[in-house]
Amino acid sequence: MIPFISRADLAEQNSWIKYLSAAMPNEVVVPFADLTAEQKRQCDIAIVANPDPKHLLELSSLKWVHSVWAGVERMINELSSPPFSIVRLVDSNLAQTMSEAVLAWTLFLHRDMPTYAKQQLNKSWVQQPMMRAQDRRIGVLGLGELGRVSAQRLVANGFSVAGWSRQSKEIKGIECFHGKEGLAVLLKQTDILICLLPLTAATKGLLGQENLSLLPIGASLINFARGLIIDDEALQSKLSTGAISHAVLDVFEQEPLPESHPYWRHNSVTVLPHISAPTHPVSASEIVARNIKQYRLTGNIPPAVDPLRGY
Amino acid sequence: MIPFISRADLAEQNSWIKYLSAAMPNEVVVPFADLTAEQKRQCDIAIVANPDPKHLLELSSLKWVHSVWAGVERMINELSSPPFSIVRLVDSNLAQTMSEAVLAWTLFLHRDMPTYAKQQLNKSWVQQPMMRAQDRRIGVLGLGELGRVSAQRLVANGFSVAGWSRQSKEIKGIECFHGKEGLAVLLKQTDILICLLPLTAATKGLLGQENLSLLPIGASLINFARGLIIDDEALQSKLSTGAISHAVLDVFEQEPLPESHPYWRHNSVTVLPHISAPTHPVSASEIVARNIKQYRLTGNIPPAVDPLRGY
Repeated sequence: MIPFISRADLAEQNSWIKYLSAAMPNEVVVPFADLTAEQKRQCDIAIVANPDPKHLLELSSLKWVHSVWAGVERMINELSSPPFSIVRLVDSNLAQTMSEAVLAWTLFLHRDMPTYAKQQLNKSWVQQPMMRAQDRRIGVLGLGELGRVSAQRLVANGFSVAGWSRQSKEIKGIECFHGKEGLAVLLKQTDILICLLPLTAATKGLLGQENLSLLPIGASLINFARGLIIDDEALQSKLSTGAISHAVLDVFEQEPLPESHPYWRHNSVTVLPHISAPTHPVSASEIVARNIKQYRLTGNIPPAVDPLRGY
Repeated sequence: MIPFISRADLAEQNSWIKYLSAAMPNEVVVPFADLTAEQKRQCDIAIVANPDPKHLLELSSLKWVHSVWAGVERMINELSSPPFSIVRLVDSNLAQTMSEAVLAWTLFLHRDMPTYAKQQLNKSWVQQPMMRAQDRRIGVLGLGELGRVSAQRLVANGFSVAGWSRQSKEIKGIECFHGKEGLAVLLKQTDILICLLPLTAATKGLLGQENLSLLPIGASLINFARGLIIDDEALQSKLSTGAISHAVLDVFEQEPLPESHPYWRHNSVTVLPHISAPTHPVSASEIVARNIKQYRLTGNIPPAVDPLRGY
């Protein structure tokens, strides 16, 4: 008996339970609301998608939860020192989808699509100067699974790519930086900045006035991570002077982005409704099923999120 | 003494002569206007960029011309049975740049960028259904250097790609069709159609009412070849009913596209000012220099355009 715990609406919960049940026919996956008191005492695993933390704390034997989301920062913030492990979704299909989005919107900026769209409105026939991909310097923030696969896809398509992570890494074909000083070096040499960092205490507001000022004049950025990593006021001020020429934003402090937010009407901002890498329920369910089967056989919990580090 | 013959303005002509002279220091490249009558009688080679044909016919010893353009259909149309060979630019950098444009605007359509741009205007936060690249069927018309490299780049980025050419071809990873019947089969299974055909008597108006009607409802298209390959009235009619959902057009019957043309204001058309693959003067000059050096050494004229076939 494995409960599925989510704040999503009933239709979405039932859809997840259907996919999860199909992927693990030997397990019984049920909505949290259907559990008896006795069952709540017995569960050692739960599958979650943005769960209400008080439901989790009702499960007194819980050893670990498997999230079907890649980002679990809300769960970590809401549960101070949880008595169970939190496993997030690491899905290579997700990395493929994200790297496709990174490539798509990098090319969108690289090939001047925002400028050509504005020119079309003015019936203006002007050929922008063309830069070769190898001369376009891309900086990828975050070199976990999503960052690494995205950086490699950009290299495969001819771009010059550097990356930055908290801890030192080595990735073939990518110039890797780490730490505070490494960040400054990377930002100073980046034409298109791509944010794929997890949201943690250390990354909240990381892209504020000081760090954004290190980018070359006219640089652009893409945020496919979490809205709170960017200081919105600092970004708007950089966009208004042209110091940053364009921002592609898929994530926001509040989602859906409120109607009153100036980003909607900003002509140097592309607003996307959190679509860079939607979870694919079939492939996510298969990964969850594999991890749970492994646990049933061996008792080993898959690599869990470090609540202090936040990812 | 090699004349450079072009209808471009003087600044552009001088710029080409500068790049060409740098690439072949053992040759003297001069504007056509600077030739004496004696020099006109002696020239065996000319370098051209959309030349006035009557200038070419003044060069009585001319054996061949090297165009710095990839498309030479205008020269062929204006010169019926020319007494010299026409060599067009085949530049692998051009193929790289074109394949990058093909990938960029294919991803633009694949990732629903036109829809998200419209949604932003309406402050609408709606996640469009996501299709995997492997399920998106791309059809590439024209499998010369540009078509082949573009098709392969799309395959490398996960798309399902079919191609069509006049004569039968085999390219690894690409489902290849040819001839009139092959075209119908390809069009019926294409979600995004990419036109990279040369403009010839056989391709003029090829994408008209009949052929466009073979595409699945909601298909989209990209024209990076020549405007006259598409029947504009047929395309507009397909766009107005939604039978074709979006068109990315970089080339037009008349360029610049006239201000009065409805494409400018059509909300299912992306108008680009002929920027898919601009010639890079340094790399084009090096290719021309190499071909001319080879000719001086061996007397062999590089593979020339077949005036009857048109490419």
